[in-house]
Amino acid sequence: MLRVGVIGTGMIGQDHIRRMTKVLSGVRVTAVTDVDTDVAKKVAEAIGATAHATGEDLVADPEVDAVAVCSWGPTHEQYVLASIAAGKPVFCEKPLATTQQACLRIVEAEVARGSRLVQVGYMRRYDVAYRALKKVLDSGAIGAPLMMHCAHRNPSVPAFYEKEMAITDTSVHEIDMARWMFGEEIAAVRVLVPRKSRNGGELQDPLLLILEMASGALVDVEISVNIRYGYDIRGEIIGEDGTAALGELSPVTVRRLGQLSTPIAADWRERFILAYDIEIQEWIDSIAAGGPPLGPTAWDGYAAAVVSDAGVAALRSGARVEVSLAEQPTLYHSVGA
Amino acid sequence: MLRVGVIGTGMIGQDHIRRMTKVLSGVRVTAVTDVDTDVAKKVAEAIGATAHATGEDLVADPEVDAVAVCSWGPTHEQYVLASIAAGKPVFCEKPLATTQQACLRIVEAEVARGSRLVQVGYMRRYDVAYRALKKVLDSGAIGAPLMMHCAHRNPSVPAFYEKEMAITDTSVHEIDMARWMFGEEIAAVRVLVPRKSRNGGELQDPLLLILEMASGALVDVEISVNIRYGYDIRGEIIGEDGTAALGELSPVTVRRLGQLSTPIAADWRERFILAYDIEIQEWIDSIAAGGPPLGPTAWDGYAAAVVSDAGVAALRSGARVEVSLAEQPTLYHSVGA
Amino acid sequence: MLRVGVIGTGMIGQDHIRRMTKVLSGVRVTAVTDVDTDVAKKVAEAIGATAHATGEDLVADPEVDAVAVCSWGPTHEQYVLASIAAGKPVFCEKPLATTQQACLRIVEAEVARGSRLVQVGYMRRYDVAYRALKKVLDSGAIGAPLMMHCAHRNPSVPAFYEKEMAITDTSVHEIDMARWMFGEEIAAVRVLVPRKSRNGGELQDPLLLILEMASGALVDVEISVNIRYGYDIRGEIIGEDGTAALGELSPVTVRRLGQLSTPIAADWRERFILAYDIEIQEWIDSIAAGGPPLGPTAWDGYAAAVVSDAGVAALRSGARVEVSLAEQPTLYHSVGA
Amino acid sequence: MLRVGVIGTGMIGQDHIRRMTKVLSGVRVTAVTDVDTDVAKKVAEAIGATAHATGEDLVADPEVDAVAVCSWGPTHEQYVLASIAAGKPVFCEKPLATTQQACLRIVEAEVARGSRLVQVGYMRRYDVAYRALKKVLDSGAIGAPLMMHCAHRNPSVPAFYEKEMAITDTSVHEIDMARWMFGEEIAAVRVLVPRKSRNGGELQDPLLLILEMASGALVDVEISVNIRYGYDIRGEIIGEDGTAALGELSPVTVRRLGQLSTPIAADWRERFILAYDIEIQEWIDSIAAGGPPLGPTAWDGYAAAVVSDAGVAALRSGARVEVSLAEQPTLYHSVGA
Repeated sequence: MLRVGVIGTGMIGQDHIRRMTKVLSGVRVTAVTDVDTDVAKKVAEAIGATAHATGEDLVADPEVDAVAVCSWGPTHEQYVLASIAAGKPVFCEKPLATTQQACLRIVEAEVARGSRLVQVGYMRRYDVAYRALKKVLDSGAIGAPLMMHCAHRNPSVPAFYEKEMAITDTSVHEIDMARWMFGEEIAAVRVLVPRKSRNGGELQDPLLLILEMASGALVDVEISVNIRYGYDIRGEIIGEDGTAALGELSPVTVRRLGQLSTPIAADWRERFILAYDIEIQEWIDSIAAGGPPLGPTAWDGYAAAVVSDAGVAALRSGARVEVSLAEQPTLYHSVGA
Repeated sequence: MLRVGVIGTGMIGQDHIRRMTKVLSGVRVTAVTDVDTDVAKKVAEAIGATAHATGEDLVADPEVDAVAVCSWGPTHEQYVLASIAAGKPVFCEKPLATTQQACLRIVEAEVARGSRLVQVGYMRRYDVAYRALKKVLDSGAIGAPLMMHCAHRNPSVPAFYEKEMAITDTSVHEIDMARWMFGEEIAAVRVLVPRKSRNGGELQDPLLLILEMASGALVDVEISVNIRYGYDIRGEIIGEDGTAALGELSPVTVRRLGQLSTPIAADWRERFILAYDIEIQEWIDSIAAGGPPLGPTAWDGYAAAVVSDAGVAALRSGARVEVSLAEQPTLYHSVGA
Repeated sequence: MLRVGVIGTGMIGQDHIRRMTKVLSGVRVTAVTDVDTDVAKKVAEAIGATAHATGEDLVADPEVDAVAVCSWGPTHEQYVLASIAAGKPVFCEKPLATTQQACLRIVEAEVARGSRLVQVGYMRRYDVAYRALKKVLDSGAIGAPLMMHCAHRNPSVPAFYEKEMAITDTSVHEIDMARWMFGEEIAAVRVLVPRKSRNGGELQDPLLLILEMASGALVDVEISVNIRYGYDIRGEIIGEDGTAALGELSPVTVRRLGQLSTPIAADWRERFILAYDIEIQEWIDSIAAGGPPLGPTAWDGYAAAVVSDAGVAALRSGARVEVSLAEQPTLYHSVGA
Repeated sequence: MLRVGVIGTGMIGQDHIRRMTKVLSGVRVTAVTDVDTDVAKKVAEAIGATAHATGEDLVADPEVDAVAVCSWGPTHEQYVLASIAAGKPVFCEKPLATTQQACLRIVEAEVARGSRLVQVGYMRRYDVAYRALKKVLDSGAIGAPLMMHCAHRNPSVPAFYEKEMAITDTSVHEIDMARWMFGEEIAAVRVLVPRKSRNGGELQDPLLLILEMASGALVDVEISVNIRYGYDIRGEIIGEDGTAALGELSPVTVRRLGQLSTPIAADWRERFILAYDIEIQEWIDSIAAGGPPLGPTAWDGYAAAVVSDAGVAALRSGARVEVSLAEQPTLYHSVGA
């Protein structure tokens, strides 16, 4: 029974606690902490866990075998570094850290330690549709990939959502997915700016993000965050001999009022709930088996941050921006992307 | 942590043990038994459980809070009755028992005990597609149900598969599903016999089973057990104002060699693996919460057996056969179908 | 330029006149007649055709090369016989005649004449989806056909629609289609009666018609004539090794208000408009080429009438009713079904 | 009966002759001509038409009411100008002319004449799927259009196909379609160059063409001309409140060998055959009614040429290229795009 300490008991933290308490196997949440100590205490009480005053205390707790970092982004670096220092596996919700420099410090700390302890929470790699898509691609059935068309659509975003978040917060999922799907780094980024939706008010929405992979393959991503009709994630890979696309995954088909229709997910929770379950279960299993985590690495988190920065620069300048990564340490060779 | 004893460590028993050991939350398998004691010992050792000589010993084990019966059909009755006698919740794989008389004895034992302890393993009720279908029906969006078209297709069946098993083994899933979906009993059964497939050799395959619900609604079920192309379960409800059907649930769409295609499940394990997970997790949760199980009841198991017998009679005679059920005890009112 | 005389200028007659005047190639409507002579005159004037007092006059008109019978069903026999007597090709809207005896008289007249002159208006054989379906079946890709599931759904029917018309008027299209698709006669018929829709008032709606083909293959047809949501024709053939179904044929897919949807045809005109065009163009082309018509024959019309009568008997009695056909004249060997 | 003279009896010319002779209504081909006079004579003989020595002779023929220009692109200008000079309606296959200057000369000649006589052969506007898509867009159901994703895929191209033809020959269909669909001009063009397919040899294939509409809406077009799997045209409009896409239009669905599949068109003839029929029939009907043609105008042909030139410049330079159109004459206001 893996004993996990959860740092951050906000929405995503509580959701992972629920998952590790009521859904998954071989895991127990033994400690929690939060900047809001009252919430932390309440959550701890409900599941019989210890509420710690700080993340560092939680990391140090001998009843904690592994750490899950679900706190506010700017605090990720310190807790991940503390976990590495303590030699404890740490699952960190995306982003790994809020600057590429911070991500690189984590990479360096992990490399210094000599073994992989960090997994970053890019859950799309665990989605049944993306996995089926990758399986088709890897089978060679459609030939080498030349392009990929993606759409990332949200029905709406909160008032605090700013223009750059379309890159840093929304399409960062596609950034990680593209690196994983194609098994290579992103070399350059462009952002094209279409006519604005009235639904987004002052916000520049939608955007068309274009990723240039190291091989020259192009990935275009429509980012629409106020499209009202539902949460919709789409992707089609264009290979030399054919294409493969994410399926529709509709559980029911209704004929009514002149239409044949299937429901669309209302939000990302509904769309990716199973991917989160699989993500965390596989993390638990890999840790429990004594091995390194098998999911997105600190390097993946760092690379996503660098591409994301390039994306923001491209959005601001209107120009093509090249991605410049540090040299990849051997620790990450043949892992993830 | 619910402690479950598993009777029968054959294919389905081992699969449930795997599920309760590596997938689900809040459960531990503490005891096992099997007619093949060597297998039972090996399985027990691998998970640190006790191997019992008999099912009765397992039921009596104080380390066993609840029992899962996964043994050979003819032994179900004795183990379920033993569990009831011990006052322990028992999950019994389908069928509840191999004769309607045995099923009725279980119903009577449970009624005598005064509370529901038995759940029968009809896992379709836990399938995301069937649940979405029922939700549409219950919403009233398509009006009252008048008909349902179903197909139950297997790529092939083993050599020992006999004609009657198309009813008793295969379409018994639709029999339970129809009662649950429509919320009413089945009143009569017909079986029509089409031209035989060369793939089934001497076997009469396919069949067209027609269930007449108490309300007069008709459910037709194509049973094809040698259709080669894959495992395919389909269902469409015809309501007064529209229809609703099980979705295609395809994770990926491929365009290649002149075709747009999506994969079809190879077998029932692939198609229903998630339904099994949900079925057992919900059973665990209901038992752990101290309540009665919320799934298919002993009455449902009994009713399925009676309809199944009527189906076999209809297959043999070619005639419409009425279903004659005992009076439903109040214990089962407003539960399940 | 084939010169066609149209008997009957009601809705379907006028539609064929429009088709032969404004849509199709190589044809001109030179003569019309109708029981309502005012309508006939008006129609004739608009297209510069002759309005005849009677169908017999029209058939005799030397400016008429071929005849299209679109009048009231009970008059079909006399006009078709007149055309045969005059040695002129005749396209007769379904039904060929209103009794199987009348149909047989037409068959006998044609046989006596020694060559095929009659084509009956079963237009499904010209629908692109049915043709694609038949092509798959004939290719052997799904093995020999064992069953077929059909649905024939109308949004509503007029007040004068009576119970038997579900067989004689509605599903007679499936009766012809099944004979053509499977290339064999229908041996027996059953009608099962589900719970009634409130939308049909006193009418028994829906029905489940079951056709037993000569080979033993079973064709089940859901007939729903008040289903509100649209006009929907579905069909899936179950072969030994796979299945083939009519496609959805949706020109557009919309994502809106939480749903992915495609439109459904409002009525049979919308669904089959192209099939009618192809039907009549191919008829024109075969006549213009001097050959016999290539579509449904008088024998097909007769067989549909006999099966339809058996269907009505089955509906009234609740029993399986065998179909008893006259011996097929050699004139019809290897033509149509 | 409209009498049409066809200039050019190559593949497309012969196809239109077949169409006007055997498929469509109200039309007769009375004259033909071709650079290869033997072919012209043979074609003329088969349909009882006059074979002229030159296009100019054909235009002057009093038995010719309207002209169809199907000859080699570089000859289009002279025959269209001759038709305008003769005051005869002329249907010109795309492109209207091979340079934007030549197109402008045609526009100016037509304007000088004072009425529209020219229609250009952009047949996508007549496709049932594109029309359904436009109907949804125009209905306001998905809000104002912000983006459109298109794909134009050919299984292969002939050896003489050069890089620029991806713009001038292939995606020029999307250029016209976008102007018509959005009802506005294209303001700028970009071409992005992905990794090359091995199937195209030296050819740069695929390409990603990006059209910037006057309103700022972006249309991206994947151009893949060696994708092997079939001919596939796709399009999805992203509106403020939803999206609408071209349907799949599959006539049949097959379940076989582990897959659910539908066929994909082999080539553009199969995909757009009906669109061609409707295009020419509507042209005939509009001319026969004495009005101007209702389809793509000379202005549309000119605009397509200008955008196409910009696209070629963008492909060569890698830069965003603005589109600079002459002022639109009032003759074309509120017509076409």
